[in-house]
Amino acid sequence: MEMKKVRIGLIGAGRIGKLHGENLAHSVAQADLAAVADPMMNDEMRSWAESMGIKKCYDDPESILNDPEIDAIFICSATNTHADLIKRGALEGKHIFCEKPIDTDLKKIEETLEVVKKAGVKLQVGFVRRFDHNHKKVHDTVAEGRLGKVHVVKVTSRDPDHQSMEYIKVSGGIYMDMTIHDFDMVRYLAGSEVTEVMAYGAELSGAGYADFDDVDTTIVMMKFENGALGVIDNSRAAHYGYDQRTEVHCDKGCVQVANDRNDMSMISTADGVEISKPTWFFLERYNNAFISEAEEFTKAVLNDTPTLVNGNDGLAPVKIAMAAAKSLKEGCPVKVGDL
Amino acid sequence: MEMKKVRIGLIGAGRIGKLHGENLAHSVAQADLAAVADPMMNDEMRSWAESMGIKKCYDDPESILNDPEIDAIFICSATNTHADLIKRGALEGKHIFCEKPIDTDLKKIEETLEVVKKAGVKLQVGFVRRFDHNHKKVHDTVAEGRLGKVHVVKVTSRDPDHQSMEYIKVSGGIYMDMTIHDFDMVRYLAGSEVTEVMAYGAELSGAGYADFDDVDTTIVMMKFENGALGVIDNSRAAHYGYDQRTEVHCDKGCVQVANDRNDMSMISTADGVEISKPTWFFLERYNNAFISEAEEFTKAVLNDTPTLVNGNDGLAPVKIAMAAAKSLKEGCPVKVGDL
Amino acid sequence: MEMKKVRIGLIGAGRIGKLHGENLAHSVAQADLAAVADPMMNDEMRSWAESMGIKKCYDDPESILNDPEIDAIFICSATNTHADLIKRGALEGKHIFCEKPIDTDLKKIEETLEVVKKAGVKLQVGFVRRFDHNHKKVHDTVAEGRLGKVHVVKVTSRDPDHQSMEYIKVSGGIYMDMTIHDFDMVRYLAGSEVTEVMAYGAELSGAGYADFDDVDTTIVMMKFENGALGVIDNSRAAHYGYDQRTEVHCDKGCVQVANDRNDMSMISTADGVEISKPTWFFLERYNNAFISEAEEFTKAVLNDTPTLVNGNDGLAPVKIAMAAAKSLKEGCPVKVGDL
Amino acid sequence: MEMKKVRIGLIGAGRIGKLHGENLAHSVAQADLAAVADPMMNDEMRSWAESMGIKKCYDDPESILNDPEIDAIFICSATNTHADLIKRGALEGKHIFCEKPIDTDLKKIEETLEVVKKAGVKLQVGFVRRFDHNHKKVHDTVAEGRLGKVHVVKVTSRDPDHQSMEYIKVSGGIYMDMTIHDFDMVRYLAGSEVTEVMAYGAELSGAGYADFDDVDTTIVMMKFENGALGVIDNSRAAHYGYDQRTEVHCDKGCVQVANDRNDMSMISTADGVEISKPTWFFLERYNNAFISEAEEFTKAVLNDTPTLVNGNDGLAPVKIAMAAAKSLKEGCPVKVGDL
Repeated sequence: MEMKKVRIGLIGAGRIGKLHGENLAHSVAQADLAAVADPMMNDEMRSWAESMGIKKCYDDPESILNDPEIDAIFICSATNTHADLIKRGALEGKHIFCEKPIDTDLKKIEETLEVVKKAGVKLQVGFVRRFDHNHKKVHDTVAEGRLGKVHVVKVTSRDPDHQSMEYIKVSGGIYMDMTIHDFDMVRYLAGSEVTEVMAYGAELSGAGYADFDDVDTTIVMMKFENGALGVIDNSRAAHYGYDQRTEVHCDKGCVQVANDRNDMSMISTADGVEISKPTWFFLERYNNAFISEAEEFTKAVLNDTPTLVNGNDGLAPVKIAMAAAKSLKEGCPVKVGDL
Repeated sequence: MEMKKVRIGLIGAGRIGKLHGENLAHSVAQADLAAVADPMMNDEMRSWAESMGIKKCYDDPESILNDPEIDAIFICSATNTHADLIKRGALEGKHIFCEKPIDTDLKKIEETLEVVKKAGVKLQVGFVRRFDHNHKKVHDTVAEGRLGKVHVVKVTSRDPDHQSMEYIKVSGGIYMDMTIHDFDMVRYLAGSEVTEVMAYGAELSGAGYADFDDVDTTIVMMKFENGALGVIDNSRAAHYGYDQRTEVHCDKGCVQVANDRNDMSMISTADGVEISKPTWFFLERYNNAFISEAEEFTKAVLNDTPTLVNGNDGLAPVKIAMAAAKSLKEGCPVKVGDL
Repeated sequence: MEMKKVRIGLIGAGRIGKLHGENLAHSVAQADLAAVADPMMNDEMRSWAESMGIKKCYDDPESILNDPEIDAIFICSATNTHADLIKRGALEGKHIFCEKPIDTDLKKIEETLEVVKKAGVKLQVGFVRRFDHNHKKVHDTVAEGRLGKVHVVKVTSRDPDHQSMEYIKVSGGIYMDMTIHDFDMVRYLAGSEVTEVMAYGAELSGAGYADFDDVDTTIVMMKFENGALGVIDNSRAAHYGYDQRTEVHCDKGCVQVANDRNDMSMISTADGVEISKPTWFFLERYNNAFISEAEEFTKAVLNDTPTLVNGNDGLAPVKIAMAAAKSLKEGCPVKVGDL
Repeated sequence: MEMKKVRIGLIGAGRIGKLHGENLAHSVAQADLAAVADPMMNDEMRSWAESMGIKKCYDDPESILNDPEIDAIFICSATNTHADLIKRGALEGKHIFCEKPIDTDLKKIEETLEVVKKAGVKLQVGFVRRFDHNHKKVHDTVAEGRLGKVHVVKVTSRDPDHQSMEYIKVSGGIYMDMTIHDFDMVRYLAGSEVTEVMAYGAELSGAGYADFDDVDTTIVMMKFENGALGVIDNSRAAHYGYDQRTEVHCDKGCVQVANDRNDMSMISTADGVEISKPTWFFLERYNNAFISEAEEFTKAVLNDTPTLVNGNDGLAPVKIAMAAAKSLKEGCPVKVGDL
């Protein structure tokens, strides 16, 4: 018997779209990447699509949305198109994988989730770090209960180097653009909702963040519904690589993960001892996690099981990011429910 | 030529007093431990003193303070006697090593420091962790400037297990009793004063801290005068050992230290891979640091150089502890200067 | 301009053949996997071939060898067919990637290499470990000369668990089947030929190796032409995973690599501290190395540069394996040149 | 009740004698260091003795041997005096701690052990590494049986830098001077006697060892009575510190130890990641082990239990060293029993 596959249409063939496309084409056994749509569709994209075995290339996502041979869509287009595409996909009965964030407007997200709910289609949001072997090990160790109740969740998340100031200008600020991943992570690890945050932040690099009312360094403390406490620290420019560590302290002990390294070498001389640097950035670190998240999406569709990052998981970090931004601005703690 | 030694009188021969006494007697080359005074002086203490080669045993510290053959005193008595003994010692021209804290009353500390200043004697406060090989390596790496300006200071400090509730009852609360060491540590590592703190805390173990308006778990965020940010997390009961880690992120990279372990073993079987546990508690972890702090004190006295933990270093963490306690109570950030 | 690709025919579609096939189809950009031949060609293989985008399926390798549209062949068939297929491929002007070993008969290997040489085609032998990120880091660090002259090469290579005794019976013995990889590794790391070996070995597991005059545990010492010394230790059943470590000591220091682990986690409780196990076996550990070796082969073909594992690299470890087997049998050192 | 102490006379007050003396005076609770004898006794030694609280100073060991108030002697004099002093001590009924080696002449060692046996006194030989926290953890893990039968014992032992050629000239060669510690270690870890060795060695540094028929680098393989195999690698000049690692592979898994480091720091920048160097040499690495071996000796005396490194443990490594030297010279394996 032939294995059943999910027939997928890819919407958006930029950097992240191609990354998902290559994974769907080559590494996700239960995916059949059948179509791609991008408003900038051109020869280079068509050539890429051919090399991926994609038969249908469009410049309009509607061609995918209207295609009865498509079971599911991967939304990898610009953020401001996400919500509308989710709604259109849901109305056409397509299952939906959408890159984060769904939107930056709470009301719009809520409306969108309502449409998805009514349509009864699957929705998975692209918080890829949940599928990283390291963070997942932390989560699973906590979730299986052997360490008891959660006390403290700690997340260190530092990018290797500055993005361009053009990027920063339209990024939505550090909390919506960068810390949002960590807000998802703390919810995932704590198994509980964030109720309050307090943010400290500063521009310390002199790279120009202050010009856009933004910061390059922040520490955010938080309280969880289950009584646990949490803390995240971020930097836009660690310089030594992608510093992605998580740590959870519980009743009976703790689980933590170190960074993946380029290799496991140690070079010892009279001058000192060198080990290898952490992997450079998200493409290196979360390479396999991108494959896993796509695999899990196809499984949820084929087996009709809940997705592992659902609509509410797409909504909650946006709220926390807003609360954090408000806390930084006002210099006092902000309750997430008060937004 | 005979090496010059500092003739020392030990005041207080309880657990910490004996620890200092043994180090001064055996491991600090430039110390001559000549006398001990303890209000509970008894045969057991006299026998201990004899084994340490101490010739003079008293029940009244005045006998030491009035002894012209004594150059310096080690104050290891109850906290509420520290300030008075420092003042008496200073008036008698003795150099002074005093266990932390000087006092828990700011005004009393300030008066005491004034007396010390006028007397022109040395004062070193017992923040022993500055002399730990690991934390010192973090400090020295930052201080030598190779990593550039400080951005973020992180301190994890978790005790292995609960103290008795009798102890907690009179401890002065987690910030004055436990976090005070970490407030000293962040000042030491940041090379800057703390200007504001925000504290989250909770009793999560169910051991009874709430009965004394205290917590067993806390996270404290802080701002430094130089623009850097910091965070400390504490637990009264880590269970796996003494978790003492520091980490400083700077312009060009970071320096961090892992815990000392009981040994460097790794045992690998089909069931998993085990490494050794962190050293159990402060006696194991800070063993050599206690010797180093005493050595540095004798050097400061003999060479007439500033002590490495001076009166202001004794005062500042008390202020921060008060600010943190206030922040926890009021649920908002507290400026240290506003106390 | 379209990137030039190497059009490849795969000979043998068993476990290792499919592994190479999937890499060539999906992960090696400059490979065009055009055909597959297997004497057992059947529907399952044809279905697999289709999913890999392979257009031509045969049961006779001659169909590939005679195909003018094929530039290169991957020989993944049974060991006793390797030499003949290499010769046939060379005569047809195909470049050749051949799984190790070329043969177990020295004379036959030498004849084969002679044919390859005359034909002027590329030959790469499948010693995949040279392309592992860890071992390559050891090699490159030594080869770049910063540590000076090589003194000692150490290789630990331990399989996770016993193969079946059916496999062991026809394996050719531990040196030809297993240590042969390590003989290649020491040559690669030392940058010099092995001149003498001394082997100790024993069956220690009681699994039945002695019935086939074989051992499950061995230590082999060796001398290199450049004066360096080396040692390899092997076990057929480490139980905790695939233990693959290399270490080179030089004039000025050493470089060594630890095992890759399943993740970078550490779980600490009162009972102890656990870290993750080494990756289980060669599929997990050398996954990316298989891709790299195929990439390097296509580069050598397209750029007309020497392959990184040439014919002599295929011959030399066979000689060393024979010398080691003789040493174990006779209980004394054996010079490799005396075979 | 007063704790009983062993009254000890120290014979030889050179570097190692003073090291033992300081430990006995300050760190070994059940030791009473009462006397010291050294043929070169002078003011400096007397002053040292006074600072250690030693009351009796002699230039003739007979003064100690004849003193009825002395229970035990520590022999720290030149190697060629060890055997005679042991015999004299035994005849006077003193318990004996003797630095390694007892002698380099097998017959003389055997005679000496015979005298000790007849006298019924305790004898402990100074193989201090057995008391190192790391190697002891390896031993204890193996000895407690949880890993099953021993298969392979591996010891890496590399000194940080060359001794003077004057030292090398009279050292007795690398096996008797340096590897002897590792021969003791493999016996300790394997729990079995070495039956055969095979040695490879070379001078690779160009420092002049060959002038004295000696080598600076050696690898020694061995067989044990219980069927296990072993290997030791040595270098006289590792340059990066004291490389002291042990590893035992058993039926069900392995136990291994990494080097102690100066601290647990990690410094990460764009240029790379540095960790701390291994401790420099034996004084740094085996500091606490020297205290433990003295403590264990006093316990054996006070409790009338066997010493942990007995006379046979002093004899066996000398035999293995001789066999290794012969193997290196003759180029073939040597059975230890054939000497």
